[in-house]
Amino acid sequence: MDRTARESPTHGFGALFSRRAAGLPGRALLDDTEVVDRISFTFGFPDAASLPAQQVAESTLRALAERGDRALQYGDTRGYGGLIDILRDKLARDQGIDATRDNILITAGSSQALDLILDGFVDWGDTIVSENPTFLGAVSAFRDAGANVVPTPIDRDGIDVAALERNLARLRADGVTPKFIYVISNFQNPAGVCLSLERRRALIAIAHRYGTIVIEDDAYFDLRYDGEQLPPIYALDRGEHVVYMGTLSKTMGPGMRIGWLVGPPEIIRRLTALKVDGGTNIFGSHVAADWLPRHLADHIAGLRETYRRRRDAMLAALERSMPPGTTWSRPDGGFFIWVTFPDGIDTGRMLAQARERGVDYLPGTRCYSDGRGQRDMRLAFSFSDEARIERGIAILGEIATGELREAG
Amino acid sequence: MDRTARESPTHGFGALFSRRAAGLPGRALLDDTEVVDRISFTFGFPDAASLPAQQVAESTLRALAERGDRALQYGDTRGYGGLIDILRDKLARDQGIDATRDNILITAGSSQALDLILDGFVDWGDTIVSENPTFLGAVSAFRDAGANVVPTPIDRDGIDVAALERNLARLRADGVTPKFIYVISNFQNPAGVCLSLERRRALIAIAHRYGTIVIEDDAYFDLRYDGEQLPPIYALDRGEHVVYMGTLSKTMGPGMRIGWLVGPPEIIRRLTALKVDGGTNIFGSHVAADWLPRHLADHIAGLRETYRRRRDAMLAALERSMPPGTTWSRPDGGFFIWVTFPDGIDTGRMLAQARERGVDYLPGTRCYSDGRGQRDMRLAFSFSDEARIERGIAILGEIATGELREAG
Repeated sequence: MDRTARESPTHGFGALFSRRAAGLPGRALLDDTEVVDRISFTFGFPDAASLPAQQVAESTLRALAERGDRALQYGDTRGYGGLIDILRDKLARDQGIDATRDNILITAGSSQALDLILDGFVDWGDTIVSENPTFLGAVSAFRDAGANVVPTPIDRDGIDVAALERNLARLRADGVTPKFIYVISNFQNPAGVCLSLERRRALIAIAHRYGTIVIEDDAYFDLRYDGEQLPPIYALDRGEHVVYMGTLSKTMGPGMRIGWLVGPPEIIRRLTALKVDGGTNIFGSHVAADWLPRHLADHIAGLRETYRRRRDAMLAALERSMPPGTTWSRPDGGFFIWVTFPDGIDTGRMLAQARERGVDYLPGTRCYSDGRGQRDMRLAFSFSDEARIERGIAILGEIATGELREAG
Repeated sequence: MDRTARESPTHGFGALFSRRAAGLPGRALLDDTEVVDRISFTFGFPDAASLPAQQVAESTLRALAERGDRALQYGDTRGYGGLIDILRDKLARDQGIDATRDNILITAGSSQALDLILDGFVDWGDTIVSENPTFLGAVSAFRDAGANVVPTPIDRDGIDVAALERNLARLRADGVTPKFIYVISNFQNPAGVCLSLERRRALIAIAHRYGTIVIEDDAYFDLRYDGEQLPPIYALDRGEHVVYMGTLSKTMGPGMRIGWLVGPPEIIRRLTALKVDGGTNIFGSHVAADWLPRHLADHIAGLRETYRRRRDAMLAALERSMPPGTTWSRPDGGFFIWVTFPDGIDTGRMLAQARERGVDYLPGTRCYSDGRGQRDMRLAFSFSDEARIERGIAILGEIATGELREAG
């Protein structure tokens, strides 16, 4: 922070801010991305060495030589048509999703997709249903939009559909139809679990029965290291009650800021009309449209090797270092391991010690909308190499063991 | 539209949409950018030939070679610090704006800036004040946010500050403080006028007196073809009651999707906290940070030559072709000429004929929040070369003359 920043005049702006701005924590989601000298397990950052800078440079040269007058101009609000068609091929081949151009909207990463969904469905005070815990960006975005979040627990097979149905029945008795049910179907962030095939089908039936839709966030679909791929809820439902969210952030790179929504044309049309802009990241979309067909499949194959090794290294290190009574997820894919400590540990309180010793992680409370998660932490194995993972986990194990000794 | 698109299931989603989505016109702001075989005066698109594709390619190679691991990774929510510092230099040198890093937020073009301002200040039903007519994207965004817009007229010196003060006094009598006053200070879109220095000072005093702030949209600052540059309202006020919006869309290119907000740190902090994303267009920001110091000044000089010629060609063509009683603006910069026809012309109705003859323009009603503008049209001189401008204006002149003959 530059200390010479000009501060507000004598009167504040308090009376002018909206409800959502007034209630903010006043901190940015990502505010220290330049700090890389500690071992960071905090965010789901991809491996820096895997980012395909050379290939992206070559794709940029081709895209600008062939279509420079389009790549630097305003673009269609729905996104660059050439990129949409390439995504349609990818979705059909890998996800089993059959989509037309009218089913797809390009967004600035999953963040803008989630923003548009909130703008399109949620008025202040409206009810939505979410897995608990869930993606910290969703926790913030739901809060900022004034949504009344009905938290629903997850277990090893994903969202607990019996608990979900009880919640929806209770809401119906109160005359409330939730605007949507938000789920992360593969390698759930943070818990690492996959929604089982049976539950995917049950979820569709429940959404239909209660007159609502499913928002399926599938950021990690391509990053499965073990087991068989499951069809997205969207594919099982043929897209009738489901809006599907995807992203290039975990494959080509987050810096591209390219994501997409797939959904019923009526929903896509409305969200497109809400997106009052001159197109989404047009330059980057033209570059991505060149890069994807040439490199995506090989790139994903390489990432799976890298991340499988890192996951295995982290699991082995946890086994060696964590105090008795600690449990953790064993995810088949994605970026995260979810650790739950015995009573006596507060991961929020423990963070200062960890940082002092050069290790960073996400306290579990950031992933809950209802204040739980004191004994939990989310560890990203994606960003650090095996040596740093071993060193970092050993440090966290020592700190947790010390905490328990004091507590005991 | 692909006719095989899967339509909604038997039940619609009507009950699930938010207020802002329910009231939408159901059409995207830009939905036919691929259509370039007509003479288009509709949108403020930059000259395609001026887009610096080769330079951007070279900047991309350098940015990715030097900082590829940062350019493709997640980024700081406030924007790439390297780009912010370059903008600070530019703002100090050209605009006379003295800003620290805490005063600046990078956005995905002016569109995201306006979205964030609405999210941060406007709850459904809140009151704002806007010039009338104004930028069509603002008209849409204000409507979608449920803002109660108090339209305030403009004349040759910009917003009518006497009318503005009457509006604010009336609101105060009703106990209402408008969240902000939105003005385009230079080469107003669509009317082409500049806010006079005297009125810039008056506007600051009025904002202070009524406890509100000014949102100063200055997309066209760099594109002045005649006369002397005026200091931005932000600079005159030293940023105490003003949030300043800028963009690269009219210079480096809209496809970059890079804009910025400059404002008091308290406001920038809140808007940053509302911007729940993984950074704005990180890849493009690294490319822009390489391109700007090398090329921006020369590029602007070239654009001024091109656009001055096009403006002069359009003014001359209007003089030759338009029926008596037609008036138009003579802007010192920017992209637009604003034409007002005599009674008997409806520019909305006339549009079908114009399109049939291969010419497109923006009917004036799109720029008003209160249904006016039937006799007005906005003509962009930025996108078409002189030959097309002459041909297009001749056609519009013939159509208007014919309409008046029928009406008379």
